[in-house]
Amino acid sequence: MSTVLVTGASGFIGRPTVTRLLDAGHQVHAVARRQPAAGDPRVHWHELDLHEHDRLVALLAAVAPDRALHLAWDVSPGFAHSSENLPWAASSLRLVHALSEVGCRRLVTAGTCFEYDWTAGVCREDDTPTLPSSLYGTAKLAVNTTARAASAALEMEIAIGRVFFLFGPGEPPGKLVAHVVRSVLAGERAACTSGEQVRDYLYVDDVAAGLAALVDSEVTGPVNIARGEGVRIADLVTLIGQVAGRPELIGLGDRETPAGEPPVIVADTARLRDEVGVADPLPLAEAIERTVAWWRRQPAVTAG
Amino acid sequence: MSTVLVTGASGFIGRPTVTRLLDAGHQVHAVARRQPAAGDPRVHWHELDLHEHDRLVALLAAVAPDRALHLAWDVSPGFAHSSENLPWAASSLRLVHALSEVGCRRLVTAGTCFEYDWTAGVCREDDTPTLPSSLYGTAKLAVNTTARAASAALEMEIAIGRVFFLFGPGEPPGKLVAHVVRSVLAGERAACTSGEQVRDYLYVDDVAAGLAALVDSEVTGPVNIARGEGVRIADLVTLIGQVAGRPELIGLGDRETPAGEPPVIVADTARLRDEVGVADPLPLAEAIERTVAWWRRQPAVTAG
Repeated sequence: MSTVLVTGASGFIGRPTVTRLLDAGHQVHAVARRQPAAGDPRVHWHELDLHEHDRLVALLAAVAPDRALHLAWDVSPGFAHSSENLPWAASSLRLVHALSEVGCRRLVTAGTCFEYDWTAGVCREDDTPTLPSSLYGTAKLAVNTTARAASAALEMEIAIGRVFFLFGPGEPPGKLVAHVVRSVLAGERAACTSGEQVRDYLYVDDVAAGLAALVDSEVTGPVNIARGEGVRIADLVTLIGQVAGRPELIGLGDRETPAGEPPVIVADTARLRDEVGVADPLPLAEAIERTVAWWRRQPAVTAG
Repeated sequence: MSTVLVTGASGFIGRPTVTRLLDAGHQVHAVARRQPAAGDPRVHWHELDLHEHDRLVALLAAVAPDRALHLAWDVSPGFAHSSENLPWAASSLRLVHALSEVGCRRLVTAGTCFEYDWTAGVCREDDTPTLPSSLYGTAKLAVNTTARAASAALEMEIAIGRVFFLFGPGEPPGKLVAHVVRSVLAGERAACTSGEQVRDYLYVDDVAAGLAALVDSEVTGPVNIARGEGVRIADLVTLIGQVAGRPELIGLGDRETPAGEPPVIVADTARLRDEVGVADPLPLAEAIERTVAWWRRQPAVTAG
């Protein structure tokens, strides 16, 4: 059992990841700007804005985590090109340094497929060049590259969970799957592109399983957190329509595909499966079924 | 005339750069942890540790600079692989963001030849890959890449002065030229390697001229600040011995060349000369003469 500090613990990825870490027997200290109303009672919650560095340092000294998982970042709409990525990169670098100062010996940061050169199609951790096309990807890559280069100086293992595309219960409403599910459950047409793009979509609980396993492992460097298999967006949204019983509401081709959309973004997941030892994920259809069922249970679903 | 904020203004590069900016007619607000005793009276000094973000924000609001030059960084011995590079990267990113918030519309940051892949030999801003081999280079590159990617979001022009090797009055004693000059002036043998390496060495006042011109220009992106011409280290230190009148004290070959030293690190300076419009630098022999003369005037020279 370790004492694990988790930032961004109240977020879409944070919530199921905290559950996984608790189930693995860890003592979890969760940091969030606001403690969620219905959080797991086993968690030690700490309300903190990560930009408040002095308060963070005091918290770290009190908790003295063995391991940490840094998920917090601004991902509000427009975040891909927002100047808020700079303070988030800054606070992340300060966090990494401060963790080392209190004796934390392993850190997993949340990376992203936005760090890769997307012309590659299939992204492999060691071969595929990094070439972010967004400020978000650039800032994340800057933090993760610097943290990794500092590993020896910090006497801290650094692993980077490069999260690809995802969906599931609690997804922010503006995202693709949440938007389509909520639209069709509300009886509204979901305007989609023609959906020729192929993306690597993983159920959020499997993302959580990957990140929690990475915290527990000794693997360092970047590790793709993904299904390892692409799905055409058209097939994904068609599946949602079928599962929700409203296939006629899937408006394929209602919207133009934005110029410059990469045709394929898929992860190689050999490191995740073979080195970190994470089991195969939930089949896509089952994951969509669970997601639709969860949204059905939410009160007052209106299209986002 | 602009209001220019300069960080690291009391440092080796900062001092002559501030003079250049004043001579160009700018109002200079200089930030340093401690105001130098014999600073230029035309400067508005502000004693501030850049890690104290709240104080920095208050200062920026009061000064409201049009342009800024960010030179401050930890370059104490061992800095190449020190974990202190993380808080410096963090504070630099916060500074960039805070400058934008108070309406600063042009920022020049201090880059470094340590950002380049040194197997290239001659480094060109747009062609030569970046591949830092030190934590310092990684952290600097992270800041500069992120700042540059954020230029549109920040509504701020970003230029990066990639400073190569340098020497001159006031150089920290542990550095090559300062060490050799001080040794031979003290009548002590200066232990050197065989000096086959070729490096691009520029007189500090010419570094200052390049950075000040970059502040005044509209050029964005990285610009090499260098002579654009290599010198064998053996020739450089031999010249020092001759100028100081003690050629017999230059101990070429006294020390082993460290393994993995890149044979050639030289800058292409076409951007600096043609786009920024900076004149040719002082000839190397004259720069060494001025440097030796300066060290002769210092009290109690003992070998560093």
